[in-house]
Amino acid sequence: MEQTHIITLITDFGLRDCYVGALKGSILSVNPNVQIIDVAHTIAKQDVLEAAYLIKGFYKAFPKGTIHLAVVDPGVGGARRPILAETRNHFFIGPDNGIFSYVFEEEHVAQVVHLTASQYFAADISDTFHGRDIFGPVAAQLASDVEPRWLGKLIDDFVRLPLPQLKTAGNTLAGEVVYVDRYGNLVTNIDLASFYALVKGKQYTIAAGPDTVASISRNYIDGQPGQLLALFGCQQTLELAVNQGSAANKLGQGRGLKVVVQAV
Amino acid sequence: MEQTHIITLITDFGLRDCYVGALKGSILSVNPNVQIIDVAHTIAKQDVLEAAYLIKGFYKAFPKGTIHLAVVDPGVGGARRPILAETRNHFFIGPDNGIFSYVFEEEHVAQVVHLTASQYFAADISDTFHGRDIFGPVAAQLASDVEPRWLGKLIDDFVRLPLPQLKTAGNTLAGEVVYVDRYGNLVTNIDLASFYALVKGKQYTIAAGPDTVASISRNYIDGQPGQLLALFGCQQTLELAVNQGSAANKLGQGRGLKVVVQAV
Amino acid sequence: MEQTHIITLITDFGLRDCYVGALKGSILSVNPNVQIIDVAHTIAKQDVLEAAYLIKGFYKAFPKGTIHLAVVDPGVGGARRPILAETRNHFFIGPDNGIFSYVFEEEHVAQVVHLTASQYFAADISDTFHGRDIFGPVAAQLASDVEPRWLGKLIDDFVRLPLPQLKTAGNTLAGEVVYVDRYGNLVTNIDLASFYALVKGKQYTIAAGPDTVASISRNYIDGQPGQLLALFGCQQTLELAVNQGSAANKLGQGRGLKVVVQAV
Repeated sequence: MEQTHIITLITDFGLRDCYVGALKGSILSVNPNVQIIDVAHTIAKQDVLEAAYLIKGFYKAFPKGTIHLAVVDPGVGGARRPILAETRNHFFIGPDNGIFSYVFEEEHVAQVVHLTASQYFAADISDTFHGRDIFGPVAAQLASDVEPRWLGKLIDDFVRLPLPQLKTAGNTLAGEVVYVDRYGNLVTNIDLASFYALVKGKQYTIAAGPDTVASISRNYIDGQPGQLLALFGCQQTLELAVNQGSAANKLGQGRGLKVVVQAV
Repeated sequence: MEQTHIITLITDFGLRDCYVGALKGSILSVNPNVQIIDVAHTIAKQDVLEAAYLIKGFYKAFPKGTIHLAVVDPGVGGARRPILAETRNHFFIGPDNGIFSYVFEEEHVAQVVHLTASQYFAADISDTFHGRDIFGPVAAQLASDVEPRWLGKLIDDFVRLPLPQLKTAGNTLAGEVVYVDRYGNLVTNIDLASFYALVKGKQYTIAAGPDTVASISRNYIDGQPGQLLALFGCQQTLELAVNQGSAANKLGQGRGLKVVVQAV
Repeated sequence: MEQTHIITLITDFGLRDCYVGALKGSILSVNPNVQIIDVAHTIAKQDVLEAAYLIKGFYKAFPKGTIHLAVVDPGVGGARRPILAETRNHFFIGPDNGIFSYVFEEEHVAQVVHLTASQYFAADISDTFHGRDIFGPVAAQLASDVEPRWLGKLIDDFVRLPLPQLKTAGNTLAGEVVYVDRYGNLVTNIDLASFYALVKGKQYTIAAGPDTVASISRNYIDGQPGQLLALFGCQQTLELAVNQGSAANKLGQGRGLKVVVQAV
């Protein structure tokens, strides 16, 4: 697959320190024509799963050949490997700590390369900042038409974190909240297809702790202000939301809350 | 007017979720050569007026033909229309909810198009994320030399929110605080011309609640540390500020505070 | 030195106001082909030293000829001068308030220009927003191959703030915390060379208030969770860190904390 000159950035570097600047500089020093696209730098510190879920939410919107660079890297300088993963339409570069687990779940993985070709790294490699010293330079090399295989060794034992799975039993489908967004929407792992395979035109209830909803709304302004809604959000998964409010606040709940659909 | 390849972004998507990334991807998938310029993604959630005021504050600094994309869209998926507005020097794309009210107040509006030409949208349109599915792709099409009129139908009943107006009576001029910035400056809608039309070299007082100021400072370091100042800020409107402090904190006030100039 | 088309931005403008947008517009209005790179806009309000330290942390990662634009400018509209500094590899533009003090400490300064050539400024100059009216336009002119000397007058009395200095006495080396990053790492001014010149293979203690560490870790995951670590961070200076925690929280300390290395 041919690369674009677009590199997206997802980090937990925050917005005040030198890390974002140094990462961007390390890219532009290799290839000043790269188009750097900030996605998010405020991932909760060292929260690999949060980053993994965020990546699932945006990468498909980018053009074929985009390079996605993700650095949430609590194990920097330790044994974890730096990797490049190539799927049908995208490249992913980051630490091998499970940060691409959702990508690996939903994409055909063409190849994963353990980044070992140090001639493509910075001249000096620190033990504390591989964003600047390895990931940034390698991403820029890739955007400069270096071939993935030149960058290291093919591996197939890359890390996949266990992701919350749906459980179906009789007329119930059980999932959980996997993300809470800025609006307080509680986003679950219950996808549209699984939902409608269960309910097939029947009545149903959606239970989240002691609260229940019995219909699917089309958008966030359905019903009355303050009302708890269920709808399929921008990733086509079930969300709990509140008209002009926050479902996270109303329910006092977050990631991990069980959500059960029951057809009746 | 010829378009630039510059698209500015103003949203309430926040800095941690997938929405900013998905919006940017939807633009670059249509036209990978667009120059995306982040203005702000931390507008207070669903605060259309705050976004409207922010747009007033920066758009004129951009070159002729810039495309400004604003998505603060509490009514997404409902009846509100997606629009494109063309003024003498700029293009504006977003929901028809009043987000361009200040632009409409101060600019000649050449045309406003209700975006209906779905061949320029994403292939699938969700009911919850028109940023990615409509506004982003349309902005990128416009940056690719698609003509505004191809994008939909001309309308003239676009939404203009009621904006705070100045009231003049005898020797007084009454306005209000319309914005509080990061520094705690209380920015009013009292413009330089109206102010000097009233005071014309006379003495005056500027009253904000129980506090008064009797002169205009040139900059934020006038007077003593902690002193309340009045000055004309970067948009040439009257601001209350505090030397090395915050007027919002000192006065305990924010948007809506009445400010009255009295010539004596 | 030939300029790149890259302009990095470091400001205390925050993420919600119109200032970042207006600054970017003022650059692109002069030269729409500039590549604008956001480094940080959330410097603590008017904290010139914080900005100075951040600049030290990232500028060297950028390619030769990069233009770094820094606007933390509490004295805007007063007597402080706008300046351009050229070092061996980089350009720096901002107020002459000491914001480039670390650069001046570690770089050969080829020339410093007091920006007075108002034909390169915006048409109207406010007293409150030189980012938009002077610094942005001048940076864009420089990126358009205007020569530094055309922009004003050479000066050599530019401001250098007093920076914390190391003190060596017998077998001790005393420094201090100069920065606290997002992870709560306490970054000191004790550099690798000075440290090893003192300890030279001897045993040592590193004392930070009542806490001590007796070894250097390679990375942030050394030792046990919660353990206080000392290591050389991404700028090759000594940091105090906590495995999976925050040294700032654990010690209840921040900028200014004395850190003493004693060889035994």
